[in-house]
Amino acid sequence: MFAVVCHGKKDLRVEQQPDRELAPDEVRVAVAFGGICGSDMHYYHRGGVGDFSIREPLTLGHEVSGRVLETGSAVRGIDVGAKAALNPSKPCLHCPWCREGRSNLCNNMYFLGSAGRFPHVQGGFAEHLILRQDQIIVVPPATDLLKLSVAEPLSVALHAVKRAGNVFGKKVIVTGSGPIGLLTAKAALFAGAAEVVTTDIEDKPLELAREKIGVHHTVNVAKEPDGLQRYAHAGGYFDVALEASGSAHALVSLFSCVRRGGRIVQLGMLPPGTAALPVNMLQTREIELVGSFRAHDEFELAAQMIVAGTIDVTPILSGTFPLLDAEAAFQQAGDRSKVVKLHLALGPDA
Amino acid sequence: MFAVVCHGKKDLRVEQQPDRELAPDEVRVAVAFGGICGSDMHYYHRGGVGDFSIREPLTLGHEVSGRVLETGSAVRGIDVGAKAALNPSKPCLHCPWCREGRSNLCNNMYFLGSAGRFPHVQGGFAEHLILRQDQIIVVPPATDLLKLSVAEPLSVALHAVKRAGNVFGKKVIVTGSGPIGLLTAKAALFAGAAEVVTTDIEDKPLELAREKIGVHHTVNVAKEPDGLQRYAHAGGYFDVALEASGSAHALVSLFSCVRRGGRIVQLGMLPPGTAALPVNMLQTREIELVGSFRAHDEFELAAQMIVAGTIDVTPILSGTFPLLDAEAAFQQAGDRSKVVKLHLALGPDA
Amino acid sequence: MFAVVCHGKKDLRVEQQPDRELAPDEVRVAVAFGGICGSDMHYYHRGGVGDFSIREPLTLGHEVSGRVLETGSAVRGIDVGAKAALNPSKPCLHCPWCREGRSNLCNNMYFLGSAGRFPHVQGGFAEHLILRQDQIIVVPPATDLLKLSVAEPLSVALHAVKRAGNVFGKKVIVTGSGPIGLLTAKAALFAGAAEVVTTDIEDKPLELAREKIGVHHTVNVAKEPDGLQRYAHAGGYFDVALEASGSAHALVSLFSCVRRGGRIVQLGMLPPGTAALPVNMLQTREIELVGSFRAHDEFELAAQMIVAGTIDVTPILSGTFPLLDAEAAFQQAGDRSKVVKLHLALGPDA
Amino acid sequence: MFAVVCHGKKDLRVEQQPDRELAPDEVRVAVAFGGICGSDMHYYHRGGVGDFSIREPLTLGHEVSGRVLETGSAVRGIDVGAKAALNPSKPCLHCPWCREGRSNLCNNMYFLGSAGRFPHVQGGFAEHLILRQDQIIVVPPATDLLKLSVAEPLSVALHAVKRAGNVFGKKVIVTGSGPIGLLTAKAALFAGAAEVVTTDIEDKPLELAREKIGVHHTVNVAKEPDGLQRYAHAGGYFDVALEASGSAHALVSLFSCVRRGGRIVQLGMLPPGTAALPVNMLQTREIELVGSFRAHDEFELAAQMIVAGTIDVTPILSGTFPLLDAEAAFQQAGDRSKVVKLHLALGPDA
Repeated sequence: MFAVVCHGKKDLRVEQQPDRELAPDEVRVAVAFGGICGSDMHYYHRGGVGDFSIREPLTLGHEVSGRVLETGSAVRGIDVGAKAALNPSKPCLHCPWCREGRSNLCNNMYFLGSAGRFPHVQGGFAEHLILRQDQIIVVPPATDLLKLSVAEPLSVALHAVKRAGNVFGKKVIVTGSGPIGLLTAKAALFAGAAEVVTTDIEDKPLELAREKIGVHHTVNVAKEPDGLQRYAHAGGYFDVALEASGSAHALVSLFSCVRRGGRIVQLGMLPPGTAALPVNMLQTREIELVGSFRAHDEFELAAQMIVAGTIDVTPILSGTFPLLDAEAAFQQAGDRSKVVKLHLALGPDA
Repeated sequence: MFAVVCHGKKDLRVEQQPDRELAPDEVRVAVAFGGICGSDMHYYHRGGVGDFSIREPLTLGHEVSGRVLETGSAVRGIDVGAKAALNPSKPCLHCPWCREGRSNLCNNMYFLGSAGRFPHVQGGFAEHLILRQDQIIVVPPATDLLKLSVAEPLSVALHAVKRAGNVFGKKVIVTGSGPIGLLTAKAALFAGAAEVVTTDIEDKPLELAREKIGVHHTVNVAKEPDGLQRYAHAGGYFDVALEASGSAHALVSLFSCVRRGGRIVQLGMLPPGTAALPVNMLQTREIELVGSFRAHDEFELAAQMIVAGTIDVTPILSGTFPLLDAEAAFQQAGDRSKVVKLHLALGPDA
Repeated sequence: MFAVVCHGKKDLRVEQQPDRELAPDEVRVAVAFGGICGSDMHYYHRGGVGDFSIREPLTLGHEVSGRVLETGSAVRGIDVGAKAALNPSKPCLHCPWCREGRSNLCNNMYFLGSAGRFPHVQGGFAEHLILRQDQIIVVPPATDLLKLSVAEPLSVALHAVKRAGNVFGKKVIVTGSGPIGLLTAKAALFAGAAEVVTTDIEDKPLELAREKIGVHHTVNVAKEPDGLQRYAHAGGYFDVALEASGSAHALVSLFSCVRRGGRIVQLGMLPPGTAALPVNMLQTREIELVGSFRAHDEFELAAQMIVAGTIDVTPILSGTFPLLDAEAAFQQAGDRSKVVKLHLALGPDA
Repeated sequence: MFAVVCHGKKDLRVEQQPDRELAPDEVRVAVAFGGICGSDMHYYHRGGVGDFSIREPLTLGHEVSGRVLETGSAVRGIDVGAKAALNPSKPCLHCPWCREGRSNLCNNMYFLGSAGRFPHVQGGFAEHLILRQDQIIVVPPATDLLKLSVAEPLSVALHAVKRAGNVFGKKVIVTGSGPIGLLTAKAALFAGAAEVVTTDIEDKPLELAREKIGVHHTVNVAKEPDGLQRYAHAGGYFDVALEASGSAHALVSLFSCVRRGGRIVQLGMLPPGTAALPVNMLQTREIELVGSFRAHDEFELAAQMIVAGTIDVTPILSGTFPLLDAEAAFQQAGDRSKVVKLHLALGPDA
C-alpha cells in the first residue's frame, strides 16, 4: 500500500509500505480522508515538532476517517464495510493516568504519526491502517467521511474547553484562529460561553470566525498590536483564555486581559525551548495557567457531534488533494491567508 | 509615636509619625511585635518589591500583633485592652472579587506597609496602628503576642495549601524553606499530605524542616544540584508543588518532578521581569501552574490555630530586636544560614 | 397605587396600597409585567408555599420588569425613564454567604413577594415597586418588557444548571416541564449538554419541549409510568438530573436512571413535610443529591441573554391579563394542559 | 481449609471448604486476622445487608491481612512468604467507572464476602484466600497483621473524607462512633479539619473518640436528644457532616445543623427501604447529600498509613477470637457498650 512518509526536513515521499497481519484485537481500515495538522507541517518543514525529532522514516497523519476492511479474531461489534471515525490515540489502559480518567496523559501512549517515542508510531496518511478495536468508532453509512476526519481536531478543542473548567456564562478569548483555534471557539460557544473573542494575525480566519463560527468579536493583532489592551483594565476582562496559536507573544498578552483568578489554557505547542513569562503577574493575580494536550475520551463525543450535525465543521474545510499530490498539499497548507485546513484523499471512499 | 520608615534603598529610619483621629468603624491598637518579612527586606535592600517601588516614605511591616487602645464610635464587640491578631489586609468588600470569596484579590485593596498603591499604605512597624474593625481578631488574654504575630505568614501558607486543592493523601514538595516555605510545609502536613519534601540552598532551615516541622525528606539543591532528578522518572512523582523560594530556577526544576496533570502553586515572588519557563512541558504534561497571593479569609483561622496551639510556630522564631535597633535587625535578617524570622518589639506588650 | 394582595387561601384582592418615600439608595419603578410563578399559585391556593404560611396580607409577584420612575439621592448610573429588569432578590451583602459568592443563600434575604420572613416582603404585582439600586438592571429602550419579565425564572434555571456542575457533553434529564423545567432544559442545552430528555404528566408542555425548546426526547410519565426504566440498566444513563416538578415521585424515579456517581439537582419545591427517599441507593451508587434555591448572580446574565436573544423565552409565554383580572389569571394559570406561564399587565408599558 | 460460612439468619458454621488451583494472575494467601464488620453482623443477624440477601452459603469477611502462600505463573513482584494487606475489592478495570478513577463503583465488582451478586463472592474468614495480584499490598516483615487488617475500614473512612471534598480548616460532624465513625473522625482530623464533633448513643465509644481519637466534642444523642440543636442557629454550623451510623434519624438531624451550602456524606448503610427526608430543607439551603460507598484507590494509602504509624488504629481494637469461636465473637460484637471491633484469628500468623 502507499503512504505519505516524512524522511526528514522537507523530505516527503509517497512510497510503498508493507501491510502486516492483524493481532486478535485489531482492525484494518481503508483510510478515506486525512487532515493535515500543524504538527504534520512541523515534521515536514523542520523535521520535528516541539521537542520531538524524526529519527526514522515516519508516515504522517492522525486526523483520519475510513472504512473497516478486516477484523481480528477477538474483535466484537465492528462489521467489515462499516464507516468509522478513527481515534489516533492508543493509551495503555493500565497506567495510573489511564486508571484515573486521563488517558490522554498515558505513560505508554501510542499516538498515530508521532516521533514522540522510538520506534516512531507510523501514521494514518496511508491507504491502510491497523488500529486496536477501541480506536474504531463506527458511524452510520450516510456519514460524510471528509467531515468525520475532523473528529480528532474537534476532540482536541472539546478537551481544551473541558480543561478550562465550566465556561457556561463566561467571557472567553481564543488566541489563534487556525483550525484548532476556530474549533475551540466553536466548542466554547457550544458549551455556553456568554462571549467569545478570537485573535489572529490574518484577516481571513477572523472573518470566518465572525461569519461562520459565530464569535462575538475578533482582533487582528498584527494590524492592531495593542488590540487586547481594551480588555486589560479593572482587574481584567476574560474569565477564560484558550491559547491556540503556539505563540509565546500571544500567551504573554493574555496575562493582563484575563481576569484576576482567571484561567489560561495552553493548547498550542510553542517552538522548542522556553518562553519568558510574567510569573509575578500570574502570582499576584492568582492566574491559573494549565496545559491541554491532545484528547482521548472526547473523541467519541466529537465523532457523534459531527454525525449528528451538532457542530458544523464545514467552515474549516479548505480543499482536498489526491494522495500523490501530498507534497503540494503540504506546501499550500501553510498559507494561512487562504487556507484553514487541507485534506488528503487516501482511498476509494474519498 | 515612633515608626520604622523606609525612605528608599538602604535608607531605613526610626522616626516620629503623627497619630490621627479614628473613623467610626476604626480601632487604634498598640502594636506589640512585628515580624520582618521578605518583602520588608526587599524594600530595604532595593527600594521595592516585585514590580512595586517606593515613591514616598513608607512605614514597613504587616506581620503584627497588639492590644486595643481605642475604638471608634460604631465599633462593636471589641474591648479596649483586648489582645488581638491584626489582619494587614483591608479589602473593599464591594468589588466582584470581594463578592465571590476572593478578597485577597480585591480590586481596591489597602494592605499594610505596601507600595502597591499611591499614596502608599503605611505599615505596622510603629507604636500605634489604626485598622478597620474587621481587621481585629480578638484573642484570649493569655495569648503569646510574639507567636500571634506569625498569624499573617501562617495565613499565607494556609492560603497556598488551599490553592493547591485537596492535598489529603498526596505527595507534596515545597521549594524554599524560609519562613513561608516552612509554614507551608507545616500547613501541608496539617492538611493530610502523605509525604512532604522541602528544598533549600542552606542546611540550617532544612534541618529545622526535618526536626521541627516534620517533613519526610529534604534536598539541599546548592550542594546537590540534581537532587530532584530522582523524582523525575515515570511521569513525575509529586502531585503538588508549592514554590516558596521566589527563584525561577526552583520553579523550572518542578516541571519535571511534578506528576503529569499535577499542580504547581507559585507563592514566592520572583525578581521583577519575566522568567523563562518550559511551556511545552506544561502543555504536554497538562501541568497546572497557579498563583497564590497573600491571604485574607485564612487569617482568622491562622490566629485560631496559633491560639489553640494546633500549629506550633516556635520553630521559625529566631530572635527579637528593640524598635530602635530596627536597622540592625534588617541587616541580620538576611543571613539565612542562621536566621529564619526576626521580630521587632514595638510596644509595652513586647 | 393598586396591588394584587393575597389575604390567605383563595383570598386574592386587587386593592390600594400606599406609596412611600425612597431611601437614598433606592429606586421607584413602574412595573410593566409580572409573571405568575408556581409559588404565587401556592400562596393563592393554599395560603402558603413549602414551609412558609401567609401571616399578614402579602402582595404577590417576583417575576417583574418595568421602567424607572424616581431615583434616591445616592443612586448613580440609573436614569429616570430607563427600562429595567428587576431582580427580586435583595441579599444583605455582609453575611458569610454574601461574602463567598452565594448571595442566594443570604442569611438575611429580602425576596419580593415572600412570606419566608415576618413582616413579609411585599411583592411586585403592583403598579409601583421600590428596590435597592443593585436590583435594577437597565436594558436598552427597545427591549420587550414582557420577555424581560422572564429574567427571574430564567435565572433560576441558569443557577440550577450551574449547581449541576459542568453539563458540557453530558446526558441530562429534566423532570417536570413547567416554566422552570422548560427553561432549565433550554439552559442545559445552551450549556452544551449532549442529550436532554424531559418528562411531564401532560402532553402539551412536552410537545413544546420537543418543538420549541429542542430537547431530544420526552416521556409522559402519566401515560407511560415505566417510561424511565429504559434508562435504568447498566449503572444508569444520565450524568445529571434536574428535578423541576416538585414531585417526590419524580425525584425517587431518578435514583435508578441517573448514572452511578451522577448528580441530581432538586430545584422544584416539594409539598411541606418529608419525602421517602431510597437513601441506600444514593449511598451505594454514590449519587449526589443537591439543592438549588432561586438565584442571584445569574439574574444579570439572564437579563442579558433575553436582551440579546441568546435564549428565546417566547415558548413559555401563554397570555397576559389586566391587573384587575388577576384572580381570573390565577385560576387559569393552573391548567397545565393549556398554559405554561401567564402574565399580569401592571402598568402603562404593558 | 476451614471457613466461617453463613447459611442464613443466625446460622453461622465453621466448616471445611475446598481449595482450588490458581489462575496465572492470582495469589493464594494464608489469612491471619479478619475484622468483623457491621455488614458481617447484618448477614448473621438477619440474613442480609441493605437490599442484599443470602441466597447460598456465604463465607463472610472482608477486613483481612495475611501472608503469601503461592503465586500464579504470571504474578510479578510478590514473594511467597511476604506479609500483605488484602484489598477485598476486585473491580473489572474495564468499565466506565474503572476508567474514570471510580473503581469502587465498578459495574462488575467482585467484593469479598458479599451477597451483592450471585453466585455470591466468598469472603476472607477462612484459612486460605485466593486474590488477583493487584489485591495484594506487600508490607514490611515487621508489620503487625492485626492492625493491618484495619486497612479496609480505614480505606472506607479515607474515601468518605475524600467524598466530603476538602475538609482542611473546616468544621466537621460525624454521626455514629462505631469503628467506621471513629476512623472517619480520625481521617477528618488527619485531613486538617479545624473542629470535629462526633455523636453516638453509647458513652463508651464517645469516650474513646475524645480520649484516643482526639475529637473536640461529643454528643450522646440518646441521653441528650436535642444535643445537636446548639448547632442549628444562624444558617447552621458544620461545613461537612459524615453520617456513619446508618440511622435515618441521625441523617435527618444533620439537615438543620449543617451550614447552608454544606455537604452531608452518607456512608452508613440504612435499613432496607426508604427514609423520610426533609427535601425542602435540602433544596432551600442548597445542601449536598452525597453517597460514599466502600473504597478502592484508598486501600493502599490506608495500608501505608498503618505501616508507617501515621494513623494509630489501636483504639478500635477490642479483642480477638479463635476461628472456632466465630459465633461467640459475632454474638459479643454487637454489644456496643463494650466493644468497638472484634477480630478472628484465622491462621498461624495470628
